[in-house]
Amino acid sequence: MTTPVIGLLTDFGEKDYFVAAMKAVILSINPEVAIIDIAHSIPAFDLRAAAFTLWAVADFFPAVAIFVVVVDPQVGSARKIMVARGAKHFFIGPDNGVLSPALEKEGCLEARELRERTLFLPQVSSTFEGRDKMAPAAAWISRGIPFRQVGPVLRSWERIIFPQPGIFKDRIEAEILHVDRFGNLITNVSGEKFLKWYGGKKGQPLAVVTDEVDFEAKIATTFAGGPAEKPLLIVGSSGYLEIAYQQASASQKLKCKAGDKLVISRGKRQKEAEKGKFSGRN
Amino acid sequence: MTTPVIGLLTDFGEKDYFVAAMKAVILSINPEVAIIDIAHSIPAFDLRAAAFTLWAVADFFPAVAIFVVVVDPQVGSARKIMVARGAKHFFIGPDNGVLSPALEKEGCLEARELRERTLFLPQVSSTFEGRDKMAPAAAWISRGIPFRQVGPVLRSWERIIFPQPGIFKDRIEAEILHVDRFGNLITNVSGEKFLKWYGGKKGQPLAVVTDEVDFEAKIATTFAGGPAEKPLLIVGSSGYLEIAYQQASASQKLKCKAGDKLVISRGKRQKEAEKGKFSGRN
Amino acid sequence: MTTPVIGLLTDFGEKDYFVAAMKAVILSINPEVAIIDIAHSIPAFDLRAAAFTLWAVADFFPAVAIFVVVVDPQVGSARKIMVARGAKHFFIGPDNGVLSPALEKEGCLEARELRERTLFLPQVSSTFEGRDKMAPAAAWISRGIPFRQVGPVLRSWERIIFPQPGIFKDRIEAEILHVDRFGNLITNVSGEKFLKWYGGKKGQPLAVVTDEVDFEAKIATTFAGGPAEKPLLIVGSSGYLEIAYQQASASQKLKCKAGDKLVISRGKRQKEAEKGKFSGRN
Repeated sequence: MTTPVIGLLTDFGEKDYFVAAMKAVILSINPEVAIIDIAHSIPAFDLRAAAFTLWAVADFFPAVAIFVVVVDPQVGSARKIMVARGAKHFFIGPDNGVLSPALEKEGCLEARELRERTLFLPQVSSTFEGRDKMAPAAAWISRGIPFRQVGPVLRSWERIIFPQPGIFKDRIEAEILHVDRFGNLITNVSGEKFLKWYGGKKGQPLAVVTDEVDFEAKIATTFAGGPAEKPLLIVGSSGYLEIAYQQASASQKLKCKAGDKLVISRGKRQKEAEKGKFSGRN
Repeated sequence: MTTPVIGLLTDFGEKDYFVAAMKAVILSINPEVAIIDIAHSIPAFDLRAAAFTLWAVADFFPAVAIFVVVVDPQVGSARKIMVARGAKHFFIGPDNGVLSPALEKEGCLEARELRERTLFLPQVSSTFEGRDKMAPAAAWISRGIPFRQVGPVLRSWERIIFPQPGIFKDRIEAEILHVDRFGNLITNVSGEKFLKWYGGKKGQPLAVVTDEVDFEAKIATTFAGGPAEKPLLIVGSSGYLEIAYQQASASQKLKCKAGDKLVISRGKRQKEAEKGKFSGRN
Repeated sequence: MTTPVIGLLTDFGEKDYFVAAMKAVILSINPEVAIIDIAHSIPAFDLRAAAFTLWAVADFFPAVAIFVVVVDPQVGSARKIMVARGAKHFFIGPDNGVLSPALEKEGCLEARELRERTLFLPQVSSTFEGRDKMAPAAAWISRGIPFRQVGPVLRSWERIIFPQPGIFKDRIEAEILHVDRFGNLITNVSGEKFLKWYGGKKGQPLAVVTDEVDFEAKIATTFAGGPAEKPLLIVGSSGYLEIAYQQASASQKLKCKAGDKLVISRGKRQKEAEKGKFSGRN
């Protein structure tokens, strides 16, 4: 029998005992589980950042894994807690959309509302349901309780939908989904779609325009594989197009952040006059 | 047989190898233990913050748990290292008071001085006793050595005593024990005491005065359950009264920090003239 | 059979899912391994800081340990990935010198290039070889695959060589290798060498000169064991000479950082005129 894994993703930061309380509760119920911290430095209440992070990492988890996501601005209110059985993993979190991108990427087999009180701590606070409801439920699921026991079927749930790129013959209208620790800008354009659009003419320069800057970029396959001191376009490790610099922060150099829009087009750098022409999609 | 758990609480931060060295030592002695990081971002040498954190989380740990707390301004000096057997858990740390609130909340069955050299690493430094003495002792205790083996009985030890609130008919004089990651202000007033004082008249506003500001606050049961953009009073997940805002930092908005004092009284916002009237308790 | 341990050391920071992806990959292959985070806050691309950290902690790891170091400015390029079998542990990382100080301190029995594709994830990205190649290889090694299976023998590899101190009759010319979380300055002078140079005359003051400041320092055995508010010289927990203050940051007080040079000599504080006289070694 293999060790089950519980992955924790929160906006609890590093300074409090909150994450430790969840782990302590989990190991009190199932001492044989392995816990992986996905991240706890999600900006407070940033549902989209948490949804992106879960979406990017879930695939890599072993089969017997349960994700517990506690980014929960409405904790204790009437919002539901959902538990979903995906094609590979279990997902637990508030019904505020934070689970949806990862869940729908994997395929949702069944969703239920977490209601079964016997799965909770004996004393339930109204401000820390991660500790009092979600962590113990995850531990019980890791011990193999029947999924239907968690509560009634949930027919619909909140969704977070990542903005889709506009792919046109002459340009791609993209958005930055995430800026990573190195300052790389991860866009919403999948590598597959991008390479299909780009075609076979390798070496052809691309022009990129944002609200702040415009620049010419070259496609590279590694961060070290393009010209130094110039922006690179790379299909990154999440399978999406990234804008990066060799050993420098593209976010700082290009003054870009998550949510910013950009237009990628063939050919040389755009003229000043064309900047800012977004068609306003998404 | 269940897996024992060791909880680590230090002021070692994230940039050095110090925490990893303690874990490596522990797993060298007992590979079957589970380690939970309670927190390592305690401000350097802040005994009270560490004591609060341990006090708030200890209850949630499974029965076979050992806490190792290394916030130790006097490391290597004549101060003793204590090992205590509480009603539920073991506690290891410098005899500087950092263990005392959690230990006394749980009930101390027996305390000893950590002196037994066979429990230490072969080479003991004078500047990292967390690695060289406390971590290995915790690992040996997790393997079930007799408690009396750790060293001689300790008859008394240093104590940190959290300030007690002054509860009067017309007001509560409280102190902020901790500011959490979200900026919520956790006071030293237990929820039980507060609700008894407040009485049954729900909805009655309360006036709060600090050295910096005065404001009117409403009782809520969840962060999302009160008026937006106004301060809320909530009995929080540690069982103590908190001052909070919906999705905003009460610490920033009210300019309050740990150690600040405040007076809570019934009725509308205080007049300017009454501000700052603390009776100087604790 | 004992639980194998994998130690992870990266510059991935805390905000992304990168470390979690590596752990998820590892536990997918070997659910019975224990993972220790050595540090993930290494400054981006700082090979020397990572090399120092691994060098300082490796000794304390249990026998069946595998280090995976991902500080890798040339990820995906022609630089090799090396796997080394040391006298006690396994080491995996880019062939950029980051492993070499720890490996050579322990003694290298055999080094190989990581090339065996069956040890990798089925899909290998060019920008995250830590997840796609190094983490799975570590997991397979922890399961006991024959070492020769990882790839061909590597005859030579990049090295990072820490600067050596100049030890003269009248002075030591040293360099700061690392500034820790408390602001202590860890020099490149081993405690053994230092004490031999210093001789038996305890209490004799020493003069220390840097490019920024000069000061008189006293030898202490613990941070709490010297005069308050004055710099102390201590043989620290890594076995090297440190400059420290009681409960204050020597780095801030003395305006020193990693890489700074200093001269230690016997006797009282140096005259202004002698400052800055470095013989320019290393």
